[in-house]
Amino acid sequence: MAGSTFGTIFRITTWGESHGEALGVVIDGCPAGLLLDESDIQRYLDRRKPGTGPASTPRKEDDAAAILSGVFEGRTTGTPISVMVRNTSQISKDYSEIASCYRPGHADYTFDQKYGLRDYRGGGRSSGRETVGRVAAGAVACKILRQLGVEVCAYTRAIGPVEADMSRFDQDAILSTATAMPDRAADKAALKYLEEAKRAADSVGGCMECVVRGLPAGIGDPVFEKLDANLAKAIMSIGAVKSVEIGDGILVSSKKGSENNDGFRAENGRIRKTSNHAGGILGGISDGSQILIRAHVKPTPSIFLTQQTVDTDGHNIDVNIKGRHDPVIVPRAVVVMECMTALTVLDAMLLNMSARMEYLEQIYAKKLP
Amino acid sequence: MAGSTFGTIFRITTWGESHGEALGVVIDGCPAGLLLDESDIQRYLDRRKPGTGPASTPRKEDDAAAILSGVFEGRTTGTPISVMVRNTSQISKDYSEIASCYRPGHADYTFDQKYGLRDYRGGGRSSGRETVGRVAAGAVACKILRQLGVEVCAYTRAIGPVEADMSRFDQDAILSTATAMPDRAADKAALKYLEEAKRAADSVGGCMECVVRGLPAGIGDPVFEKLDANLAKAIMSIGAVKSVEIGDGILVSSKKGSENNDGFRAENGRIRKTSNHAGGILGGISDGSQILIRAHVKPTPSIFLTQQTVDTDGHNIDVNIKGRHDPVIVPRAVVVMECMTALTVLDAMLLNMSARMEYLEQIYAKKLP
Amino acid sequence: MAGSTFGTIFRITTWGESHGEALGVVIDGCPAGLLLDESDIQRYLDRRKPGTGPASTPRKEDDAAAILSGVFEGRTTGTPISVMVRNTSQISKDYSEIASCYRPGHADYTFDQKYGLRDYRGGGRSSGRETVGRVAAGAVACKILRQLGVEVCAYTRAIGPVEADMSRFDQDAILSTATAMPDRAADKAALKYLEEAKRAADSVGGCMECVVRGLPAGIGDPVFEKLDANLAKAIMSIGAVKSVEIGDGILVSSKKGSENNDGFRAENGRIRKTSNHAGGILGGISDGSQILIRAHVKPTPSIFLTQQTVDTDGHNIDVNIKGRHDPVIVPRAVVVMECMTALTVLDAMLLNMSARMEYLEQIYAKKLP
Amino acid sequence: MAGSTFGTIFRITTWGESHGEALGVVIDGCPAGLLLDESDIQRYLDRRKPGTGPASTPRKEDDAAAILSGVFEGRTTGTPISVMVRNTSQISKDYSEIASCYRPGHADYTFDQKYGLRDYRGGGRSSGRETVGRVAAGAVACKILRQLGVEVCAYTRAIGPVEADMSRFDQDAILSTATAMPDRAADKAALKYLEEAKRAADSVGGCMECVVRGLPAGIGDPVFEKLDANLAKAIMSIGAVKSVEIGDGILVSSKKGSENNDGFRAENGRIRKTSNHAGGILGGISDGSQILIRAHVKPTPSIFLTQQTVDTDGHNIDVNIKGRHDPVIVPRAVVVMECMTALTVLDAMLLNMSARMEYLEQIYAKKLP
Repeated sequence: MAGSTFGTIFRITTWGESHGEALGVVIDGCPAGLLLDESDIQRYLDRRKPGTGPASTPRKEDDAAAILSGVFEGRTTGTPISVMVRNTSQISKDYSEIASCYRPGHADYTFDQKYGLRDYRGGGRSSGRETVGRVAAGAVACKILRQLGVEVCAYTRAIGPVEADMSRFDQDAILSTATAMPDRAADKAALKYLEEAKRAADSVGGCMECVVRGLPAGIGDPVFEKLDANLAKAIMSIGAVKSVEIGDGILVSSKKGSENNDGFRAENGRIRKTSNHAGGILGGISDGSQILIRAHVKPTPSIFLTQQTVDTDGHNIDVNIKGRHDPVIVPRAVVVMECMTALTVLDAMLLNMSARMEYLEQIYAKKLP
Repeated sequence: MAGSTFGTIFRITTWGESHGEALGVVIDGCPAGLLLDESDIQRYLDRRKPGTGPASTPRKEDDAAAILSGVFEGRTTGTPISVMVRNTSQISKDYSEIASCYRPGHADYTFDQKYGLRDYRGGGRSSGRETVGRVAAGAVACKILRQLGVEVCAYTRAIGPVEADMSRFDQDAILSTATAMPDRAADKAALKYLEEAKRAADSVGGCMECVVRGLPAGIGDPVFEKLDANLAKAIMSIGAVKSVEIGDGILVSSKKGSENNDGFRAENGRIRKTSNHAGGILGGISDGSQILIRAHVKPTPSIFLTQQTVDTDGHNIDVNIKGRHDPVIVPRAVVVMECMTALTVLDAMLLNMSARMEYLEQIYAKKLP
Repeated sequence: MAGSTFGTIFRITTWGESHGEALGVVIDGCPAGLLLDESDIQRYLDRRKPGTGPASTPRKEDDAAAILSGVFEGRTTGTPISVMVRNTSQISKDYSEIASCYRPGHADYTFDQKYGLRDYRGGGRSSGRETVGRVAAGAVACKILRQLGVEVCAYTRAIGPVEADMSRFDQDAILSTATAMPDRAADKAALKYLEEAKRAADSVGGCMECVVRGLPAGIGDPVFEKLDANLAKAIMSIGAVKSVEIGDGILVSSKKGSENNDGFRAENGRIRKTSNHAGGILGGISDGSQILIRAHVKPTPSIFLTQQTVDTDGHNIDVNIKGRHDPVIVPRAVVVMECMTALTVLDAMLLNMSARMEYLEQIYAKKLP
Repeated sequence: MAGSTFGTIFRITTWGESHGEALGVVIDGCPAGLLLDESDIQRYLDRRKPGTGPASTPRKEDDAAAILSGVFEGRTTGTPISVMVRNTSQISKDYSEIASCYRPGHADYTFDQKYGLRDYRGGGRSSGRETVGRVAAGAVACKILRQLGVEVCAYTRAIGPVEADMSRFDQDAILSTATAMPDRAADKAALKYLEEAKRAADSVGGCMECVVRGLPAGIGDPVFEKLDANLAKAIMSIGAVKSVEIGDGILVSSKKGSENNDGFRAENGRIRKTSNHAGGILGGISDGSQILIRAHVKPTPSIFLTQQTVDTDGHNIDVNIKGRHDPVIVPRAVVVMECMTALTVLDAMLLNMSARMEYLEQIYAKKLP
């Protein structure tokens, strides 16, 4: 089926393979009148580029976004926004070995089982490069949200056993450290840990977090379209994510109700919660507190140690992955998490605009005869 | 928006409030020719009924399923199957207190913020009774899956700190213990733990797991419609679930690639994995191993201790919840997890039927002129 | 697939067979706060009831609507509204002949080809009784539209060769004549024509029209979700409709541009068109004029003359349809056309609420910090 | 909303403006394993290019299709196929007058009313150039259908009052005449009629038809997703179409049941209809006969006569459209109708693959343990 579309009102469709000619996204349903140019998107794409430190691959990616439609005289027109990024640095020969074997931890085997064939160059559609389209679209969603007073911010919470100390939370560090951690001390420790893993020809996992600030209460829908359910899907759809937590997450299973419930208090005519174990969502609907989501990311499956696998003829073989691979996925996935969260939250806000009769009257009143 | 619909081909729409006249589900897209009667559904509904032990509320629910359409002479006809369950035991006066205050941990506040009003009787649409429709539909999905050789099985993994010992896995115990644990010793310990919590007027959280056996490789779609992404949404949409894990879940973030990758081996012409850290899904597509999903469930928010909250006039008050409430949600939610998993997996299998040109030829060949 | 769902935001799912236990509809996405009770729905259902004149079947249908969910203390709550109508007068033996043969003009053959079996009682899901769910949902859509100043009105334009004279347009006649014509003289002539057809054991076709007044300009989406495209689908989905026209419809193909274009004129600060050949839609978007849709309806396929057909064993047979059948479909289908139009227009209005950045600011402004 | 997406399984999303940088389409859900290259698409795009005769505009369009993703080693991979066509011949100054006024018969006014702004260059998204994406996607759908034995063929039925004589039906003429008529004599007469209109600075309407041969019985879904309902939407979504007919279309409203019903006959074990007034669809499901659809197309709204309109400041003005415009839309729209029909029929066939339990067993049997 059409697996490359996300969202109901603000709906994006991504396309492109790791080593094809280009990758891109079509954003349909973007409200008209938003100031938008390529720099809004480029800023986000640059955050998923590989760097030069131990957290990243030496592969140079030059992801220049071109807006091909949907923007006129600097503003969105309400029609589909097509964004394209040319693949400029793909070196197909690097990946020729993938053609004939199933790399452990990758989707080579499952794509072959599903489709009967696959584009094996760099992992094709299952490569992390697929997220170029998500990030380009997410950049637009983030811009709209900011104008509505909603901020989305993701960062690396942990790399392997090295965890950021949240009492030292440093917003600037997220964009300036190689690990995207909000804690410079943890960043240093994590880089050291990564060096060791790299020396051992191995890779490591990590944890990322995303907070949404300024979201009004009342966003999200009951039952199947709960805000947390859609966030879980959005985040779990990022390659390598194996767990999603909302608020206290896995800790709730060993808590008492008296510990886990958040009380309510009124102050100066505003209702606030006395704590936020719920992570800002009750019954699938935002409660006005900060939304908190956590994702656990598996180690990069491409490691340089010898591994057991099977070739496409069904013979048992030993494989030694070559090429350029990040020893950890998290730092470059952080912006993807931020973008998927923004896309989910924005779509929920747009859907919420028809939740009450009074909203209809508000929009259509001036048009009544 | 329409938040009460789930699935693309096998699409269900649930309706009904805790204390309304009835609850139900419309299943559209069920393949024609399936033998189906009310007993197929009743068996699943009975598993979410409250029991008599310490894990449950004394409220008697008599959930009798009636099939109102879509079945003729014992078989599904391909048209919508409407299943209805009358609410027979609702006692509205029990819940009158909810009308004027926001219960901590419940969706009272967020529903009011979203809609401007709410059906406060028993939590209305945000009540756990909403799952009646999910379970009725899931029972049908499970029946189809079994005919295709796919078994879905959920159980309680832990209640508070009491965990089932999986080396003692006992399938029969799931349906016969009060906790739905697959380990009778853990069941006993958990019941004792629940008694204590009940005595303390408190509630407890827990963890449930679901396995899918017999699913062929190749099911699920890349990018946004990954099988694990859809499972995460399905499970996170169950009220009180705060975290979803696939395979090794949160453990992956502290693992090395060499530990986390599953190797492949060919044996007698079949390809198997040497381990299953991935939980049966690679790149969003099933790999032929067992699917493993875990969900962490918060403690029942209705506790009998005094709590701080706000009334609907915005005054700070103390509230003492009355009524009948399970001290733990997990045992009755297990069948809901099983059903949501089945609905997700079946829909993915139906969508997969058009993934290859050869499948089209297979279905339409005999119809060609 | 799920063929029984219509709409994106205001989304309805109908269910039920002609001679099953009940029929109904689930309306999901209805804005909260609308005053609604059964009488709002009953008034529309009564319009599709068979009458007693020559335009109708003598079969007594007692379609009493029950609202089972989604309304609390007289107002919609934003959660699914389930409406059910019990089948009280079905006499299955009347239709037993359908079981073994394919009635010309009916869907017996195509249902068998699609599903391999069918509920043959009264046509099952392909019966005109299926529209009960559409009308119940449409009644709610009409009520919302009226509050926004939008009126939807359908009527019979022609029965066989007898056409209503629009210069004598009489709104009251629509609800009070047996033919639902807005012209009492044409009604009389049509009834005479119907008597003749009935005496000849034959049936007749007809034409119905629907106008939408008060719809603001700007409703509908370009390309595939054009307002006229969605109206065409909505109306063509009514059984027996074989053609849909917008505005001048089929006449445009023999017109010149100079005759067909509608000019624009500004008057007192408002822009109006000098004519309305377009039927109120330009480029798929409403232009502020009256929307005009026309539908051509085939003669009732159940006639009492001997017809050639094939039985389910593949033998050629002659068939004589028995039972009770309207000699013309149009008068009872008029309310269905009105309802399908209302559902389409309302959904387009709800979707339009996120078309501009300024609308987002309007709804969310008061919620900004 | 997202108005630029069409289809459920075989789902296309088009993008691009008349005078933007490029136009394109993303096809998601195309079955894997189809042989496909640019020439398959180019052949269809060439059919919508302007010619040199009196039926066309002198504007040179050089629509070269590039496949950017989803095809590997000559076959579709099951992932999104992105097709792009660069705009090479747009001359923006030609259209500068549109910026400040609302052209009669165009969507200038309605776009401004909807979005508050518009890309006025060449009509932007409301231009006929938007169909480039539809045709590129439809070419792929047509190729798949042909492999399943289904042929889709559209042609011009009439231009103004000049109608093709179907008794002289000449398949080759469709692709070789300037009018796309299947009758060379009518083509000549039509060209003469067009010359006159052109001389009078006017434009003309016309009628196009599409037949689908080889479609098995059983395709399409009851109620809202009827095959004819989806065809009506697909065809009405083509700019300038004002009416859609299935089979006998508008004629049915003045027919008797005895004239309009198609009988069934069995012959050599196959069931055929004795006539095809229904146009191959009964109850929304294909009956195995030829599908017949007719569309009435309004005259090109851009005419060179002086017209009354309003400028964007709300002043009444006279306008004289300049530039290059076809005097008739039909000949170039024929391939668009063919493509929209193919997209609709293919999607219905893909959806139908899960209609019966036996189809599930057929696809999954070999995968069962």
